[in-house]
Amino acid sequence: MTAEIICVGTELLLGNITNTNAQFLGEQLAELGIPHYYQTVVGDNPERLKKAIAIASERSQLLIFTGGLGPTPDDLTVETIADFFQTPLIEKPEIIQDIAQKFASRGREMSPSNRKQALIPQGADILYNPIGSAPGIIWQPKGDRLTILTFPGVPAEMKRMWVEIAIPYLRLQGWCSQTIYSRILKFWGITESALAEQVAPFLDLQNPTVAPYANYGEVKLRISACAESATRAAALIEPIVTQLRQIAGLNCYGADDDTLASVVGQHLRQTQQTLSVAESCTGGGLGKMITEISGSSQYFLGGVIAYDNRIKHQLLGVNATDLEQLGAVSATVAEQMALGVRSLLQTDWGLSITGIAGPSGGTDSKPVGLVYIGLAQPDGTATVQEFRFGDQRERSWIQRASACSALDLLRRQF
Amino acid sequence: MTAEIICVGTELLLGNITNTNAQFLGEQLAELGIPHYYQTVVGDNPERLKKAIAIASERSQLLIFTGGLGPTPDDLTVETIADFFQTPLIEKPEIIQDIAQKFASRGREMSPSNRKQALIPQGADILYNPIGSAPGIIWQPKGDRLTILTFPGVPAEMKRMWVEIAIPYLRLQGWCSQTIYSRILKFWGITESALAEQVAPFLDLQNPTVAPYANYGEVKLRISACAESATRAAALIEPIVTQLRQIAGLNCYGADDDTLASVVGQHLRQTQQTLSVAESCTGGGLGKMITEISGSSQYFLGGVIAYDNRIKHQLLGVNATDLEQLGAVSATVAEQMALGVRSLLQTDWGLSITGIAGPSGGTDSKPVGLVYIGLAQPDGTATVQEFRFGDQRERSWIQRASACSALDLLRRQF
Repeated sequence: MTAEIICVGTELLLGNITNTNAQFLGEQLAELGIPHYYQTVVGDNPERLKKAIAIASERSQLLIFTGGLGPTPDDLTVETIADFFQTPLIEKPEIIQDIAQKFASRGREMSPSNRKQALIPQGADILYNPIGSAPGIIWQPKGDRLTILTFPGVPAEMKRMWVEIAIPYLRLQGWCSQTIYSRILKFWGITESALAEQVAPFLDLQNPTVAPYANYGEVKLRISACAESATRAAALIEPIVTQLRQIAGLNCYGADDDTLASVVGQHLRQTQQTLSVAESCTGGGLGKMITEISGSSQYFLGGVIAYDNRIKHQLLGVNATDLEQLGAVSATVAEQMALGVRSLLQTDWGLSITGIAGPSGGTDSKPVGLVYIGLAQPDGTATVQEFRFGDQRERSWIQRASACSALDLLRRQF
Repeated sequence: MTAEIICVGTELLLGNITNTNAQFLGEQLAELGIPHYYQTVVGDNPERLKKAIAIASERSQLLIFTGGLGPTPDDLTVETIADFFQTPLIEKPEIIQDIAQKFASRGREMSPSNRKQALIPQGADILYNPIGSAPGIIWQPKGDRLTILTFPGVPAEMKRMWVEIAIPYLRLQGWCSQTIYSRILKFWGITESALAEQVAPFLDLQNPTVAPYANYGEVKLRISACAESATRAAALIEPIVTQLRQIAGLNCYGADDDTLASVVGQHLRQTQQTLSVAESCTGGGLGKMITEISGSSQYFLGGVIAYDNRIKHQLLGVNATDLEQLGAVSATVAEQMALGVRSLLQTDWGLSITGIAGPSGGTDSKPVGLVYIGLAQPDGTATVQEFRFGDQRERSWIQRASACSALDLLRRQF
């Protein structure tokens, strides 16, 4: 039993989008222990898609398609698959009903072109799409020798359908024998190379394996084990995770689905403390990160986006002379912003960010990438930390790293 | 003359990394006007790689390999290609010299395993790697019927070799006669299917082609033309772009690198007007979007993240009785938030968002996905729009779509 991923879409060939679907599905198949040896990308072209199906159906028994399920004429994955297996398409009234309902719940009318999405090969089952209009199919066109699953190209829809419907189906078929089980440890405040040196002996392990990754200033260690069950794999992994955590100390902020915002949130919720933010160069990005966590209203009251100096003075009470003489990007202003928002919103903690995100606005003494983060504490005092992210980084990188560094500063207080 | 991309690496199949190399090469081939219809990903396995070469060399004349050029035993791309074409490997002293020099310049000694990288098929040329130790090859194993280029998997090395050596080579061969030039039109406030119906006749065009795609509530049309020069291709595209814009009207907000935030920013800058925001369920995401634009400080003064009702009342002056009786997620509160922030920050426009991002917090009368967006205008009046994004969407989707819809509401006023 081997699987194969076929991603359909001219936009993939033209490089308009990155093929993150193939990465997600590859990771998932590895975790389920389903071998997969090939991935193919092909454009919205029926003849070439048929050739790809011919090749894949010879060498693999489970074909996973993404893309080409939309309502427009260039979406032709399902009809081409049906055509390849010389099977007629049948209109499914339950799909039409489902699409119409989804449109109605958003106060819209279904367009006639959506009817196309209700056509699936005779004998195929519907792979329901809980979010969008495009359903997938589960089909065995040659009995149990070949199984076809189709998914929309929109990553959020594909992932949900995969997790809720495809995985239970694959397990039920008994195709998920060996399991690769992974955990991710997450770090902030240490570089990838420094962490790699700290944990060097672990990087040579065979089972589990330990591999470092880095992106946007965050470093991760992926610990993966292969075993006959998730329990056995987890048992192989846990002692390694414990040792790695001990070595890394406070630089390790969490694991798996943790984010800096979720870790901070957990602490605040447990201690029943509240937080507010005052943002200049991040313009709301810190608040956005905090409120990505469902339930953040329990501890996050809000904040002030003080992009203009007038707002810093007027709402946060930053001293006008300091603003003029020291500049908005200074430790003093960061401190006053944090104290100001804490007092204005009456919270336990106040977190502030002021800096130069670039690409313009930098000077010799205050280059792009210079950021001050202030933290007003429950006792009414404040601390400020200076960061220099470097003037070669993109604006979005600096904004993101600033927000993460602010959360990191707060988390280290607990 | 058609090209094909073959990416070699088990880490791609396992989903450990995203295949950005395929995206880069796809984009490059399109710009050079070299058609490419298939991409294949295969693991570090000689037998399966040979099968992939057999298929690709039948249907394409230019095979571009990435990955598997390193010094470790699992790097086997070049020797497998040589084996497939039954050609012996020859050790190239100039490669050994080059690698040894690179190591020496970093104060290191070349390890014996690097000697492997000096082996290339008899008759092949070296595709020099200016950065790393792994050279590629340029090889025509069957005369001019088939050309093979190999690149390392490290994106920075691959890109440099592509730009400095492969492109001049491809041009010299006369394979880059045609150019594919694309433009993207961007839409907000219309579904993919509704737009596709409006522009249906265009979707059948052959050159240029018009293709729709959608993500996160945004719809795009990609208009691509193939011609002997970028100028000619652009001339084919422009009348189509003009017609599509006319048909789509206000739903088309921009093209290419435009974002809703950049389009709004441009208008505000031109008219010298200012903007402030009041955010509840987006928690700063709207401000973040606005300040992603460099120079946004010219028109964006800041805002209030009024996540908690107390802040809505205290800072924005939302009526406490309305908050209690109508709820924070109501048209009245959205209106008062917009008016409140406009007046507090003394801006021309005030934009507000209040809604239920979920996954919890929804009720029958106020389901997850219900969002009110308020806009306070320069004349001191306000309008409110209700959105129902559906209770099956993820929290992050609803937050993002809310911020985009707010910018969309504002842009339609200009």
